[in-house]
Amino acid sequence: MDKNIVVFNTLTRKKEKFEPLNSAFVGMYVCGPTVYGDPHLGHARPAITFDLIFRYLKHVGYKVRYVRNITDVGHLENDADEGEDKIEKKARLEQLEPMEVAQYYLDRYHKFMDRLNVLRPSIEPRASGHIIEQVEMVKKIIKSGYAYEVNGSIYFDVEKYNKKNNYGKLSGRVLEDLLANTRDLEGQDEKKNPFDFALWKKASPEHIMHWSSPWSEGFPGWHLECSAMSTKYLGEYFDIHGGGMDLLFPHHECEIAQSVAANGKEPVKYWLHNNMITINGQKMGKSLGNFITLEEFFTGNHKSLSQAFSPMTIRFFILQAHYRSTVDFSNEALQAAEKGLKKLMQGIVTLNKIKPSANSDVNIIKLQHDCYDAMNDDFNSPIVISNLFEAVRIINSANDGKEKLTIKDIESLKKLFNDFAYDILGLRDDSLYSGNNSIDGLMELILSLRKNAKENKDFSTSDKIRDELLKIGITLKDTKDGAVWKVE
Amino acid sequence: MDKNIVVFNTLTRKKEKFEPLNSAFVGMYVCGPTVYGDPHLGHARPAITFDLIFRYLKHVGYKVRYVRNITDVGHLENDADEGEDKIEKKARLEQLEPMEVAQYYLDRYHKFMDRLNVLRPSIEPRASGHIIEQVEMVKKIIKSGYAYEVNGSIYFDVEKYNKKNNYGKLSGRVLEDLLANTRDLEGQDEKKNPFDFALWKKASPEHIMHWSSPWSEGFPGWHLECSAMSTKYLGEYFDIHGGGMDLLFPHHECEIAQSVAANGKEPVKYWLHNNMITINGQKMGKSLGNFITLEEFFTGNHKSLSQAFSPMTIRFFILQAHYRSTVDFSNEALQAAEKGLKKLMQGIVTLNKIKPSANSDVNIIKLQHDCYDAMNDDFNSPIVISNLFEAVRIINSANDGKEKLTIKDIESLKKLFNDFAYDILGLRDDSLYSGNNSIDGLMELILSLRKNAKENKDFSTSDKIRDELLKIGITLKDTKDGAVWKVE
Repeated sequence: MDKNIVVFNTLTRKKEKFEPLNSAFVGMYVCGPTVYGDPHLGHARPAITFDLIFRYLKHVGYKVRYVRNITDVGHLENDADEGEDKIEKKARLEQLEPMEVAQYYLDRYHKFMDRLNVLRPSIEPRASGHIIEQVEMVKKIIKSGYAYEVNGSIYFDVEKYNKKNNYGKLSGRVLEDLLANTRDLEGQDEKKNPFDFALWKKASPEHIMHWSSPWSEGFPGWHLECSAMSTKYLGEYFDIHGGGMDLLFPHHECEIAQSVAANGKEPVKYWLHNNMITINGQKMGKSLGNFITLEEFFTGNHKSLSQAFSPMTIRFFILQAHYRSTVDFSNEALQAAEKGLKKLMQGIVTLNKIKPSANSDVNIIKLQHDCYDAMNDDFNSPIVISNLFEAVRIINSANDGKEKLTIKDIESLKKLFNDFAYDILGLRDDSLYSGNNSIDGLMELILSLRKNAKENKDFSTSDKIRDELLKIGITLKDTKDGAVWKVE
Repeated sequence: MDKNIVVFNTLTRKKEKFEPLNSAFVGMYVCGPTVYGDPHLGHARPAITFDLIFRYLKHVGYKVRYVRNITDVGHLENDADEGEDKIEKKARLEQLEPMEVAQYYLDRYHKFMDRLNVLRPSIEPRASGHIIEQVEMVKKIIKSGYAYEVNGSIYFDVEKYNKKNNYGKLSGRVLEDLLANTRDLEGQDEKKNPFDFALWKKASPEHIMHWSSPWSEGFPGWHLECSAMSTKYLGEYFDIHGGGMDLLFPHHECEIAQSVAANGKEPVKYWLHNNMITINGQKMGKSLGNFITLEEFFTGNHKSLSQAFSPMTIRFFILQAHYRSTVDFSNEALQAAEKGLKKLMQGIVTLNKIKPSANSDVNIIKLQHDCYDAMNDDFNSPIVISNLFEAVRIINSANDGKEKLTIKDIESLKKLFNDFAYDILGLRDDSLYSGNNSIDGLMELILSLRKNAKENKDFSTSDKIRDELLKIGITLKDTKDGAVWKVE
């Protein structure tokens, strides 16, 4: 298959031809969750974005090693180098061992990503499981002269690094501006400069998670894990590093500095960043009362939501925007996405009913090419979706007898949906795959058949329905608004 | 709630009153899978056994920290100290990074354990994520004098240990017999004695997974991870250590020796072991052609299976035996379990139809007490199940008007099933919870209604069924054997 992919590289701020280091293989590293809270939209967007990219790279024939980490230690409050560890704080509040907290939220993350049909990465390394590798990397950075020790903690010397290298090359920030704009935070006095960052922190007595190191009993700085684990599983220089735009600075900037200092070279050929989400035009935040978890979306159980939105509606909505655009969530926009997804799925159903003609009015191959062109152009999923809607228009038109499709057209349309809707966009029909929705659909039909039977005084049929349902554990109750059913 | 639990302790070979070290809390460690192959019955039994125990301990009010490890490094072929690492071998055969293999089979393990309704443990530590803790433990054992170094590898000195301690106290083996019965295996010449075991192995050049240590670039011995991780998350002395009987020797015996050598005390108060499974009376093994994965059971796709068996049938079948008895799998026995489970679930459905009487013929409270007595007696699930069947008999009899149940009886029966069938035994109605089975049941009903409609020449109904199904993505096809359906 021809692989003419072009990606927008944050590092160069332009679109570049995608040419992996080893032509048949792609190494991709994406920053995963800090597991101290329930998964929310901020988790869904990068997971779906890089799932799309993972799926497409595999679809066109690359063998992809996709590494997505789990941060289960070292991520301090406010992304700063001081304050409590996010997971330890949660553990203290819930009176649990920190690893119980991490395990609980990791399991929740997996559960909700599965529901969003996000494929599991090839390797999912945990920060706490790679302390040795992180300590080794700190040693290298010290040896190269870009780190200093204070009271058992090791800090990266940004100013010294910037003299020979360009700290800020990814984010476009300039060190002098950074210096001018940084407040002196309490407890930061150990550092030479406020923008220096911790590679290793000595654990204070209240810290539960700590390991021995040449410098102190302590724990790694948050930025370090991604450098150490990407190097371990993908090598010192690899193809793609992804993550949300919020991680661009300081997290990814620090990753570059760490790798250059430790390995003498930059780590990543293509840096890819998904844009942010907003809710009704506002940044999502606990203090704003618009912080909505995925579970709340799927159940509709949040005061800002007018209804439940299925995992596939959320996925489809996110894919309707290009990954480098912002996405604003609102009830109206999600309802529109729900309708659009239903129309798409209905088109696939209708396709199976169409009688082929001897000749053709349409050009399905062009649609297919347009979909590939869109994906090749920096993974432009909204253009793919608009082409799929054009396919649905053709199908409906053919179903109404207004256009003609040959057998070959129908086969090509089926392939188009299989490749793009299912395999690449990762959509699926919620009503069939999520147990409850499919039961809902079938039960609706059964209850309407029973209603008809009763109206026709065909009581043997209506009784049969009641009895057969009971056998599989469903009880019916007749109310003045019709029959309702319940799973016992 | 009164907690009069008695457990059979492998260490003392008798039943003992269960008294956790800290009265309100229970620490439980169970040996989890080596993730290098698809989950099979050998994984299902210990997982379900200790899930039952986990569920019951929580049910009676303990706060349980349940740790189940993942072996992703260091488990060599044939459990010996020589040969290839199981995961590395698989990685080599499949041309993957070892961690990709471990991740793949870990994900598969989770998927199938979820289907068996096995709850996730509180903490699921990975061996490769705890190298530091293992190295620290080796240092302690060396310091205590019970380990020696040869060519960068560290071995546990069993003979020396046995002079002051009892190596064999858990398994009942005697060192002299062991010596007499051990063959000299190739490559074991580094050890002083063949029964010595590796704590740390120097990595040969072809080994991919290795870490630095004071002795060599290498990897930990298999027995060590459980000692290091149980100590880390549960302390040096904790309540319950579980696992399959096949792990009793040498694995658990070595764990005791390691802890005594490192910490000066035995690690575990109660050792619990589930018995083995056989298939048609034979040990399950790849060479015998009777090696059946869980996926093969759930799909029926194996030459030895006459049909598919649902996850709940497998779970119910395993729980029908006491965990210390052997379980023999055969088509006949599984079919009987399937029938039994259906009967149980049908009883719960019937219960909802019963009209209460003013007076009672039965003693439900006694049934409830008998269930608790059974669980308190070393988690005797088969006795619980027989009591639930007695409850079903009462329900059916009351439904036939032969016995009387008061409202209170009915409520007690509902509580009995909720507590024991669902919460403690962890059963659920497959036909409702697994999407496909519930669709199967409802589709069977719908197709039979359509058949009737056609026979009665009620084509408006049969067409309506076809059209409504199409809307939710189900196509019907009429064949000479009746209608078949397909999800598009």
